[in-house]
Amino acid sequence: MNDSASSIDKSKGFTGSDFSVSEQSRHLAIEIFDELRQLSPSEIGVSRETYGPSETAAFELIENHATDAGLEVQWDSAKNMRIRLPGEAGDIPSVATGSHMDSVPEGGNYDGAAGVIAGLIILIDAKNQVKRIRPMDLYALRGEESAWFGGPCYFGSRAMFGQLTENDFTSPHRDGEKTLADCMRASGADVDLLKTGARLIDPKSMHHWFELHIEQGPILIARNKPVGIVTGIRGNHRHRHVTCTGEAAHSGAVPRWLRHDAVMAMCDLMVRIDEHWRVLLEWGEDLVVTAGIVETNPKEHAVSRVPGEVSFALEYRSQDIKTLKSFEALIQSECEDVGKRRGVEFDLGIPSLTPPAVMDPEVIQILRDACDAHGATYEVMASGAGHDSSVFANMGIPSGMVFVRNDKGSHNPHEAMEFEDFFVATNVIGSAMLAAANDQTENT
Amino acid sequence: MNDSASSIDKSKGFTGSDFSVSEQSRHLAIEIFDELRQLSPSEIGVSRETYGPSETAAFELIENHATDAGLEVQWDSAKNMRIRLPGEAGDIPSVATGSHMDSVPEGGNYDGAAGVIAGLIILIDAKNQVKRIRPMDLYALRGEESAWFGGPCYFGSRAMFGQLTENDFTSPHRDGEKTLADCMRASGADVDLLKTGARLIDPKSMHHWFELHIEQGPILIARNKPVGIVTGIRGNHRHRHVTCTGEAAHSGAVPRWLRHDAVMAMCDLMVRIDEHWRVLLEWGEDLVVTAGIVETNPKEHAVSRVPGEVSFALEYRSQDIKTLKSFEALIQSECEDVGKRRGVEFDLGIPSLTPPAVMDPEVIQILRDACDAHGATYEVMASGAGHDSSVFANMGIPSGMVFVRNDKGSHNPHEAMEFEDFFVATNVIGSAMLAAANDQTENT
Repeated sequence: MNDSASSIDKSKGFTGSDFSVSEQSRHLAIEIFDELRQLSPSEIGVSRETYGPSETAAFELIENHATDAGLEVQWDSAKNMRIRLPGEAGDIPSVATGSHMDSVPEGGNYDGAAGVIAGLIILIDAKNQVKRIRPMDLYALRGEESAWFGGPCYFGSRAMFGQLTENDFTSPHRDGEKTLADCMRASGADVDLLKTGARLIDPKSMHHWFELHIEQGPILIARNKPVGIVTGIRGNHRHRHVTCTGEAAHSGAVPRWLRHDAVMAMCDLMVRIDEHWRVLLEWGEDLVVTAGIVETNPKEHAVSRVPGEVSFALEYRSQDIKTLKSFEALIQSECEDVGKRRGVEFDLGIPSLTPPAVMDPEVIQILRDACDAHGATYEVMASGAGHDSSVFANMGIPSGMVFVRNDKGSHNPHEAMEFEDFFVATNVIGSAMLAAANDQTENT
Repeated sequence: MNDSASSIDKSKGFTGSDFSVSEQSRHLAIEIFDELRQLSPSEIGVSRETYGPSETAAFELIENHATDAGLEVQWDSAKNMRIRLPGEAGDIPSVATGSHMDSVPEGGNYDGAAGVIAGLIILIDAKNQVKRIRPMDLYALRGEESAWFGGPCYFGSRAMFGQLTENDFTSPHRDGEKTLADCMRASGADVDLLKTGARLIDPKSMHHWFELHIEQGPILIARNKPVGIVTGIRGNHRHRHVTCTGEAAHSGAVPRWLRHDAVMAMCDLMVRIDEHWRVLLEWGEDLVVTAGIVETNPKEHAVSRVPGEVSFALEYRSQDIKTLKSFEALIQSECEDVGKRRGVEFDLGIPSLTPPAVMDPEVIQILRDACDAHGATYEVMASGAGHDSSVFANMGIPSGMVFVRNDKGSHNPHEAMEFEDFFVATNVIGSAMLAAANDQTENT
């Protein structure tokens, strides 16, 4: 951890409010969004495939605009792209922003790309401003979405820190033919180098990380605020296939006291879990709980048969790893109690764990100040969806995220971000980046 | 209704205890069970197909044994078989027993057949006893099982009272090719006559109806009693496809207060229903409740998606039609309340209704007396499964049923009835039939 990395010299006051997107850059941003949509192959939405030709085409579009604007472009061994103002000192830790360029299949145009385009116009408009102490970088990242390779994600950002594993490289593409390694090679990445676990950058070379992203939930719409400041990215525990086993029986001939009804037991469990959730929220903990898949066994279930088994998925997310762990223990104890009372057995299986990531409190404060300076109302909120920022934050880089209000969720063709909200959020990130770039604290 | 039909002349005391299965008939019964199993085609169990050749073969086996024993055999237009002691007066209402000969596919050898074989040895042993006032009949009934024609059942007994409908005749066989009418014709039934709704017997010609059947639930095993006396046959309301519609959403990005989680709502509903059930049992009502099928929508469900819809089956059974009706109202009101609280909508659909049937209180008393006379311990209990007896009872014929203890349920190859229990139950039914056959009360 860079313990004091985020301590910004407050004696100079908040200076980031200088930044505001220029009229010219507003037009440019809208133009790039439009070009991007047109070059992304799709049927009903937008499909920019992780380490696929459509993702590469999107990178090249951004590269062309950056070069036109006189910015310096570098590609790393994972085929992520770094864009930098020309002539900045390479040995001083930078203030970086960025996001990913890929989308889910038939997704929307803003999920990911908005953060890259925001960074691009921030760099372009910052070019004409006074010289900062720290360099400002934009990263366009590869492969953030989990939809293309069956679960694993954040390939580009994790590759930067040597985190890709054999499990990642062998993950099969949803077409069932290629692996991630195949697609990375075809995109020009140096897979052999990445397999050594080499870091492509030193985390200490990044003084701050900022990411702008559309909100993927409905909170900003519900609260009627253009901008969200993210406190943390929820981690999760996923029990993909919980089973409850009781005893199948004739639905008419077996009385209540002799039943071991798997569905009633599951419902009992879920209502207990739901009540614990409600209470934990009252106590101020961050938590969401979902049983997204439920199925009785189609080989034996019937209207007139007491169900002997049911399977379901159970996922809970929190910004706080302690909450995740204690909630898992709570669920285990309720499974035991319901099991005893109803004569059934729950098997939770081994959950897959994704750790939460905490956004830096001082970065959050810079972003709040930037919102206030711009008169932007904002919601301080958790990110329920995962983001590349969790990778940067968990590498010890002080990180912050800004959400842009977005109707109709994401991962679908109907995502609806208003450009006005996008520019408010870009002003906030740009201002915060300038504040951080003018900070004289050294990384320790 | 034959209001006083079941009033048996108590002044003469209970005389049915005279009846006890002879040693010879015990051997015969075991032999017939064995022959029956051998002629029933099957892979792992026993398959005697409703209005199929294997059912007809079973009828012919019983016919041959009846003829050998000097009993009179008649087939009706639905190809049910009536077996009668020779020389009994045709114009006096009879005391009848019987059950069905078909089985479910890959079922057991006792479900149905036990009641026919019991009746056969009762008639054979009664032949040598003193002359009764009333004739004693055995009916071997066609097609009781619902498994062969996709739901409808009790074809043989309902045909006796002109109750088959166009829906029955056109019901498709599980092979997808034939209809019930095709199979009835192939078995020699007079479908054209049955379609007129003509009754094959006058209900007033039947003074009492008795049925012996294996228990299809675990109660007698659990209570360690050989015999059950049935108080009523549960009717049911079946909501085959209840839907709960909420709103699908990102499982990480949407907080509790903005969710409309269909699965959580269903679980909430089911736990409320379960609690009402528990309380109604405490109040002494008869009720069983089952949600045998549950499914989220496989086209859109996912581990990380708040489920927007779930469908489930809901069935409740009771001996009391008032309980069924009031429970349905209770469920509707809980659906509304859960719907309001959780922002979801339940659609219960139109339930299919099967009315309960009440066994005659005086017949129940005769059966209790017969048990006592034989020193047989017994459980007074509801039948959760449906039986032909409900057809006779609902025609106003005073009816009674005796269950035989049976391990491992029915509708499977593992049903396990002990012959000793079978003979106890046969003694009870035989004694009760003799008591009823000696009753001098006229049908009114």
